[in-house]
Amino acid sequence: MSESTALGGVPVTELVERFGTPLYVYDGATITDRYQQLRERLHPAVRMFYSLKANPNISVCALLHSLGASAEVSSLTELVTAERAGVPAEDIMFLGPGKSRTELTACLKGEVTLICESLGELALIDELAAELGTTARVVLRVNPSFAVKGSGLTMGGKPRQFGIDEAALLAESDLAGRHPSVRLCGFQAYLGTRFLSEAMIVENTARILDLAERLSQHLAVDLEVVDVGGGLGVAYFAGEQDLDVAALTDQLNPVFAAFHARHPRTVLVMELGRYLVGHSGTYAVQVRYVKESMGERFAVADGGTNHHMAAVGIGSFVKRNFPMRLLNRDSTAEPVKWNVTGPLCTPNDTIGKAVELPADVRPGDVIGVERSGAYGPTASPVHFLSHGYPAEVLIHEGEPRLVRTRDDVESMLAAQILHDFR
Amino acid sequence: MSESTALGGVPVTELVERFGTPLYVYDGATITDRYQQLRERLHPAVRMFYSLKANPNISVCALLHSLGASAEVSSLTELVTAERAGVPAEDIMFLGPGKSRTELTACLKGEVTLICESLGELALIDELAAELGTTARVVLRVNPSFAVKGSGLTMGGKPRQFGIDEAALLAESDLAGRHPSVRLCGFQAYLGTRFLSEAMIVENTARILDLAERLSQHLAVDLEVVDVGGGLGVAYFAGEQDLDVAALTDQLNPVFAAFHARHPRTVLVMELGRYLVGHSGTYAVQVRYVKESMGERFAVADGGTNHHMAAVGIGSFVKRNFPMRLLNRDSTAEPVKWNVTGPLCTPNDTIGKAVELPADVRPGDVIGVERSGAYGPTASPVHFLSHGYPAEVLIHEGEPRLVRTRDDVESMLAAQILHDFR
Repeated sequence: MSESTALGGVPVTELVERFGTPLYVYDGATITDRYQQLRERLHPAVRMFYSLKANPNISVCALLHSLGASAEVSSLTELVTAERAGVPAEDIMFLGPGKSRTELTACLKGEVTLICESLGELALIDELAAELGTTARVVLRVNPSFAVKGSGLTMGGKPRQFGIDEAALLAESDLAGRHPSVRLCGFQAYLGTRFLSEAMIVENTARILDLAERLSQHLAVDLEVVDVGGGLGVAYFAGEQDLDVAALTDQLNPVFAAFHARHPRTVLVMELGRYLVGHSGTYAVQVRYVKESMGERFAVADGGTNHHMAAVGIGSFVKRNFPMRLLNRDSTAEPVKWNVTGPLCTPNDTIGKAVELPADVRPGDVIGVERSGAYGPTASPVHFLSHGYPAEVLIHEGEPRLVRTRDDVESMLAAQILHDFR
Repeated sequence: MSESTALGGVPVTELVERFGTPLYVYDGATITDRYQQLRERLHPAVRMFYSLKANPNISVCALLHSLGASAEVSSLTELVTAERAGVPAEDIMFLGPGKSRTELTACLKGEVTLICESLGELALIDELAAELGTTARVVLRVNPSFAVKGSGLTMGGKPRQFGIDEAALLAESDLAGRHPSVRLCGFQAYLGTRFLSEAMIVENTARILDLAERLSQHLAVDLEVVDVGGGLGVAYFAGEQDLDVAALTDQLNPVFAAFHARHPRTVLVMELGRYLVGHSGTYAVQVRYVKESMGERFAVADGGTNHHMAAVGIGSFVKRNFPMRLLNRDSTAEPVKWNVTGPLCTPNDTIGKAVELPADVRPGDVIGVERSGAYGPTASPVHFLSHGYPAEVLIHEGEPRLVRTRDDVESMLAAQILHDFR
């Protein structure tokens, strides 16, 4: 077995035989490495929260929890996932602009920290906490008046559905007094996603810490928690480069250390999703047909947009390819350009456009889309053409474990109800 | 009850109370009207096939079948859906560039017509049919050498994963002889989606019929079936106009009639998905919070991208709003611009950007995204943030019927497997 035909030390042919395709394979060793490399270098006052939205599989969450990660969740199902994965309530924060009463109540009963996104939500939290006879532990999410550059998607410093405008908070006088069943315990800001510049992350973090200090004074809120968000990126495309963890922590730690010296009892929080799990995943599809059309080569595979919308690039202006390779065998055939497409009936269902793969790619071959551990099937239209959710496998200590069964006809139809119209 | 606060004659407040939100509501009367208006005017030699991919709900399929529609399917689950909805095998065609052996075998056993998309697939069909001791009924999908204008997305006349290049078919001599277990019975071409110009559809159809005649002569294939595809659009955005069914059929029928005069025994096929069901659907979300951010109004609702990616416009260069309105009450407040956003943690989760709604929109209000009967939840990342699939209701003869139950925590976690890593 060559390195190139294995995932996490397990031969791809074995994985395909046992679990079928299309298949998501997560390498637990990679997740562990990513977590530990950052943990070892990061200032000890900073706690690492795993953002389940990146990959909410319960075993992925359990693995990260076993390494020491806390959990940041954004729905009732994510909350229950974290709980069942063993994360204690005090290590969970719930974030999201549209929390339901059910979700808020579950957090209040479980003593989960709420990251509050609007004054309307704050009033509702206060009301629900009073009804339950409890005190809500609330971190205020701030939409700062400044924006930063260098992110893939700007989340703050603009009109946004997230957080409370900095200016609105500065206009408040007695936020704590007006919400007696709420204990305000800090601030959060999240400025953007997919940062690949260490310097921008450092600037981002410094500005959020400064903002938290200013707001804490103005609103007389003790800084038990300051959550500096996250948004640490993963290099997917040609020309992009992964963050250097040593360079990043060398620059970040002094910023955290200075803050920590002034606020030794404040828990600092970083939210990490894509950064922790992105590299670990491979989306493996099997080629069903090869064909030529008007001078271009096509490998038609058994999965595509429906399982991996990010690789297909829907939502992007220009289609750029994720790293891809032939997984099931070594080939000495010359590399040529292939379009790797999925089973859907739209030309947009193209996983790789003019991607270099061996000229002898043939039906039965397995092609992998790498760096696919984050925002994979859960961020994709898995019901499209009713193909359903793929199987997911997590390799732990050399052992592949099924962590999500594949949908089939009966699971796809189970929730549908047939009425008779004749 | 006013017209504006009801869907299919049922008060929205009643629908929300019975079925909750977010909710997809399909008006059976609209589906029936759309089907019958076209059926009454369309040349009788043309059979109307419902493309399940537009909305694969089994009761939607059953309703269309009860009206007389045949079924075009693209996955095993869609095939089983059509069968359980009562569509007989001879009224089903299976299409798609990446059919599996399981799917092909199911079609062969059920005597479902296969629309074949490559020479590799044709060889596989022949092999599987021989193994089963049957003869496959196959329509060849052609990627024509010409393209047409006026579609939202071009499916033919370019290098594509779909069909067999016209030039490749013209280079064949004995396709039938080389595939003894296949009965070639016609041709299909599908040139694009979202056509909103009657003239382009007519030109499109005329060219496909001409192509089929030429290929039939060259390959000595009897024209039992000619499938002219579909792609009839629905007006979603400002400046777009719906097709005029009278104008369309006035121009199309002479083209079909001339062909029919030459080939009286040929069954003509139109594939219709979005056109039949698009108008019928409303996506109803409930406002959880209203807020202002940097001078813009936001209504944060309980559903968004995760259920209706098309309305959010992911994949489009410019965000354009679907028709939207306040559903649960009449308001005399002046119309102002609102951003209607969903529960996800991305600024892209914006259903309506600067959309005009009454100034007094408040928590608890229900906002509807209209014309949402096609490519709704099945074309959306319903697992994103683990919120799950919404409920779906079909109103038939004034009676709302639940046709898809809402996902909950247990249904979302049912397929996941927790391993212990401690």
